Amino acid sequence: MRYLTDGLEIEKKSFEIIGLELGDRLPDGRERKIITRIIHATADFDYAGITRIHPRAIDAGLAALKSGCAIYVDTRMILAGINTGALRRHGASACCLNDDEGVKREALERGVTRSIVAMEKACAERKAAIFIIGNAPTALFTLVGLVEKKSIAPQLIIGVPVGFVGAAESKEALRKLDIPYILTEGRKGGSTVAVAIANALMYMGTPYKVSP
Amino acid sequence: MRYLTDGLEIEKKSFEIIGLELGDRLPDGRERKIITRIIHATADFDYAGITRIHPRAIDAGLAALKSGCAIYVDTRMILAGINTGALRRHGASACCLNDDEGVKREALERGVTRSIVAMEKACAERKAAIFIIGNAPTALFTLVGLVEKKSIAPQLIIGVPVGFVGAAESKEALRKLDIPYILTEGRKGGSTVAVAIANALMYMGTPYKVSP
Repeated sequence: MRYLTDGLEIEKKSFEIIGLELGDRLPDGRERKIITRIIHATADFDYAGITRIHPRAIDAGLAALKSGCAIYVDTRMILAGINTGALRRHGASACCLNDDEGVKREALERGVTRSIVAMEKACAERKAAIFIIGNAPTALFTLVGLVEKKSIAPQLIIGVPVGFVGAAESKEALRKLDIPYILTEGRKGGSTVAVAIANALMYMGTPYKVSP
Repeated sequence: MRYLTDGLEIEKKSFEIIGLELGDRLPDGRERKIITRIIHATADFDYAGITRIHPRAIDAGLAALKSGCAIYVDTRMILAGINTGALRRHGASACCLNDDEGVKREALERGVTRSIVAMEKACAERKAAIFIIGNAPTALFTLVGLVEKKSIAPQLIIGVPVGFVGAAESKEALRKLDIPYILTEGRKGGSTVAVAIANALMYMGTPYKVSP
């Protein structure tokens, strides 16, 4: 059986196919690049219709990266998927607070999810930050609440929790805030979607070589 | 805003919603459990129609786990997503060879993807093993070729690469082998799908507590 074995070639061909199938459903530009990378990671064209990008989101995200911001994520899967080379070239850093021993203990004591405690902790650090929520609606609800109380002003929130309980509602709450966000309406989202968005953003700001 | 904050409660409610929407599209049983967990991770009911589970796959996978097998995965995201507590209780171990320095060097020298070299290396170790391919069709093509040459006889292959170039074809090639597999037909799949399947399998063999 013959098949393509060169990673860059595979990615190029994939993007051509996605471009053809998308046609003129989306205008050219940076938004389309982000959505194309989501579709590349999921093979799900629904994302062309449900991805919402705040008008200031891309510029704000790139400025934050350029300033060497902290990136807080809610799952280890997202942390593992973010292109570390691109991250390094931007001088930014990423961490997942859910694994912190103090966070685990406090979540058990209070009877809430680790994501809630982790988000509160990240907010308390008060760094220039991008938040990426790919899994837990509770983390996004907490973050939205902290923004509303003006406890924190994130540079960008990538809010794409997936699921059946609270995911859609948490993203609706995010959408009502007047801060830069990238989100997916409804139930869909998840770690691969979050990673696709984060990497697409980083590739805009710096040249990269794909590592399949 | 009021929302559920208890992880176990959220998961229980989610599974009820999925069960109601699935209705009688799938018979009760272990296959349905696996597919339910995929839908839980993606919010994509397409997986009810495209997931194919070899009749011996679940028993073979559980037996392999029980024997403390090695689990080879093709991405760090999968490694990060596998429930380490459940893995430990089974006495199994997981590793992603793509990050190995020797693998990186050899891939560059030969001009092929790291996944190809990594799969060959995993096969050479000749342990009782489950292979999980969630990203690279090239890794699955390589693995299928090695099985056909009888270089290796995996206990179970979870083959769910996602994408537009080779993904569908690599899974068709897997389906033609008479060895236990779990796969998703067509373009869809990915790391979250791979993790959902692996964790669903592990939860069947051992009691677990969810960690959202």
